[in-house]
Amino acid sequence: MSIYTTPIFNINLKKLVENYRLLEKLSAPAIAAGVVKDDAYGLGAKEVTKALYKAGCRHFFVAHGSEGALIRPVAPDAEIYALQGIGEDSLPYFQQANLIPVICSPDMLKFWHKNKINGIRPAIQVETGLNRLGFRISDLEKLSAAELNEFSYVLSHLSCADEQAHFMNARQLENFRTIKSRFFPNTPATLSASDGVFLGNDFHFDLTRLGAALYGINTAPYRENEMKNILELKAPVLQVKPLAKGEFVGYSATFRAPVDMRIAIVSIGYGDGLPRSLSNRGKVIFYHDGQAFFCPILGRVSMDNIICDVSQLPSLKTGDFGYLINDDYTVDDIARDAGTIAYELISNIGKNPRFIKNYNS
Amino acid sequence: MSIYTTPIFNINLKKLVENYRLLEKLSAPAIAAGVVKDDAYGLGAKEVTKALYKAGCRHFFVAHGSEGALIRPVAPDAEIYALQGIGEDSLPYFQQANLIPVICSPDMLKFWHKNKINGIRPAIQVETGLNRLGFRISDLEKLSAAELNEFSYVLSHLSCADEQAHFMNARQLENFRTIKSRFFPNTPATLSASDGVFLGNDFHFDLTRLGAALYGINTAPYRENEMKNILELKAPVLQVKPLAKGEFVGYSATFRAPVDMRIAIVSIGYGDGLPRSLSNRGKVIFYHDGQAFFCPILGRVSMDNIICDVSQLPSLKTGDFGYLINDDYTVDDIARDAGTIAYELISNIGKNPRFIKNYNS
Repeated sequence: MSIYTTPIFNINLKKLVENYRLLEKLSAPAIAAGVVKDDAYGLGAKEVTKALYKAGCRHFFVAHGSEGALIRPVAPDAEIYALQGIGEDSLPYFQQANLIPVICSPDMLKFWHKNKINGIRPAIQVETGLNRLGFRISDLEKLSAAELNEFSYVLSHLSCADEQAHFMNARQLENFRTIKSRFFPNTPATLSASDGVFLGNDFHFDLTRLGAALYGINTAPYRENEMKNILELKAPVLQVKPLAKGEFVGYSATFRAPVDMRIAIVSIGYGDGLPRSLSNRGKVIFYHDGQAFFCPILGRVSMDNIICDVSQLPSLKTGDFGYLINDDYTVDDIARDAGTIAYELISNIGKNPRFIKNYNS
Repeated sequence: MSIYTTPIFNINLKKLVENYRLLEKLSAPAIAAGVVKDDAYGLGAKEVTKALYKAGCRHFFVAHGSEGALIRPVAPDAEIYALQGIGEDSLPYFQQANLIPVICSPDMLKFWHKNKINGIRPAIQVETGLNRLGFRISDLEKLSAAELNEFSYVLSHLSCADEQAHFMNARQLENFRTIKSRFFPNTPATLSASDGVFLGNDFHFDLTRLGAALYGINTAPYRENEMKNILELKAPVLQVKPLAKGEFVGYSATFRAPVDMRIAIVSIGYGDGLPRSLSNRGKVIFYHDGQAFFCPILGRVSMDNIICDVSQLPSLKTGDFGYLINDDYTVDDIARDAGTIAYELISNIGKNPRFIKNYNS
């Protein structure tokens, strides 16, 4: 018998590149850019950028200047756009790493005019209905023709593109077209992230910004997922023991055994980014003779451990691995059980420094 | 006007040490150990360990061997216990950093016997009612007197110690006393984490394991928090703009303005560990003339931004900072609004690499 204590997180960059190829094809002739903000949704911005760069990707989006500086060494001649824009605190990153800010407000444009970087043409974000960052029409009306002409891209973002029939999609598309034709007739344009790609060519313009779908998330949940799962998260069983009828499990004693059971203590918890909302709701998958057994999490998820019901698996033993994410139970599945979205789930899981993290390419 | 883009996370190690002093006093004559697992609940294991070590703490608890190895350089002569125990994958950390495993099962004890480290006396975890890791009485009955005598500490963990009147507290205390007197009459003992400290001397035995309360979390919510808040999280306003009656905000258009409003877009999101469950529920605090204004988060929390209602603050402008955690809105407050516990909240926030992170000591 072997004993292990550490969870293992496997990230398949080969499948990530396959996802990129499919999205690139759907986006064509628009440029397919890679979105690697938030440390590539927690999965490792450097490793992901390197893989995408090798696959031919030359346009990247990050949120913060610091994130752009981090990936510059592995994407030497790429265009790197920072969606949160530029400020006093982030200016040095833009200067050192030759990053392109996405200007989001008139105030930020003033800052840019005082702090221009030689050879950089910023992008501009415009408001089309998300009511997040971006210039409104009344803001654009105050800009001179010369100012309007200085931008490399005009950018906006869809609010409801994961729902094909949502009225906001058509409304934002119309608003974007109006703004583009009135203020930016000759400026390249970008409106869609992964979810917008599936809404059809009208939404693609000159560049699509591919994030979530690259990482295997279904951004078009009204149809079956065409993306490949790229993640596997597993953790070792530290102990298997009987649980007598009437005994309690975990913090606050929220589970009480209705019958005699057999439980496994698995070495992973919310300290590893596993959502605590999986308490009494999540599952751990074990395999026996090629069959998958979905074993319910009993009681509260704690910081370092979860407890699950393995009564149906008499042969399970210490040192066996249970799966939290894999092809049979994807990031969308576990996120649904946790009451959140896969974006938040992988962002929290991926940043965990305790895992043994492997990149397969 | 200044423009900023980056959230700032301030961790006050001076107040952390003050919390340690108070808990040390409550625990005395028991030894007050520091629990710095999960990167010190996300706040930085090295920095926290260094501060506690300077304050005289010489006993530390981590979950994984890798975490113990990380803090060894800043706690050179301390006893460092690893609660997840030891296995093939973590053995080298124990050997290199002279860590003490907490043996949690008969299988792990066999592994230890084959892989003993010179000069290390392991601890043993026993089951008293949490039904997580630990030897059951029937497991202990199989150990020889010599085997029972080899442990440095006998350890168990309370399941409901944050509820003073919970029946499990007395039950687990009795079970622990029974096990100790029968199997470990001469072995030092530890039962309580922060929450157990507040249950009184009976629960302290020879050592208390101080984690959550050090970090300012109220582990005795049935009384007013005696711990000092040690955290401040703030993020800059990227844009302020009007929102007309009837307009929608954020992904899936979950908020619609009932009247004309004024909104601020703040540069922080779930990509920074801020729970997405704060969508339409959380608050951002702004200060004006010394007064705190709690501004509701409108619509969904997105990966990099939140949008909040600042209609009551006509003077608010780009570059001002909004507070997500501080003395007026503690980790317990924001966790309650997010539907989780402060432990999970700070564990996810603290690991964020995008913040400007400052340690004040």
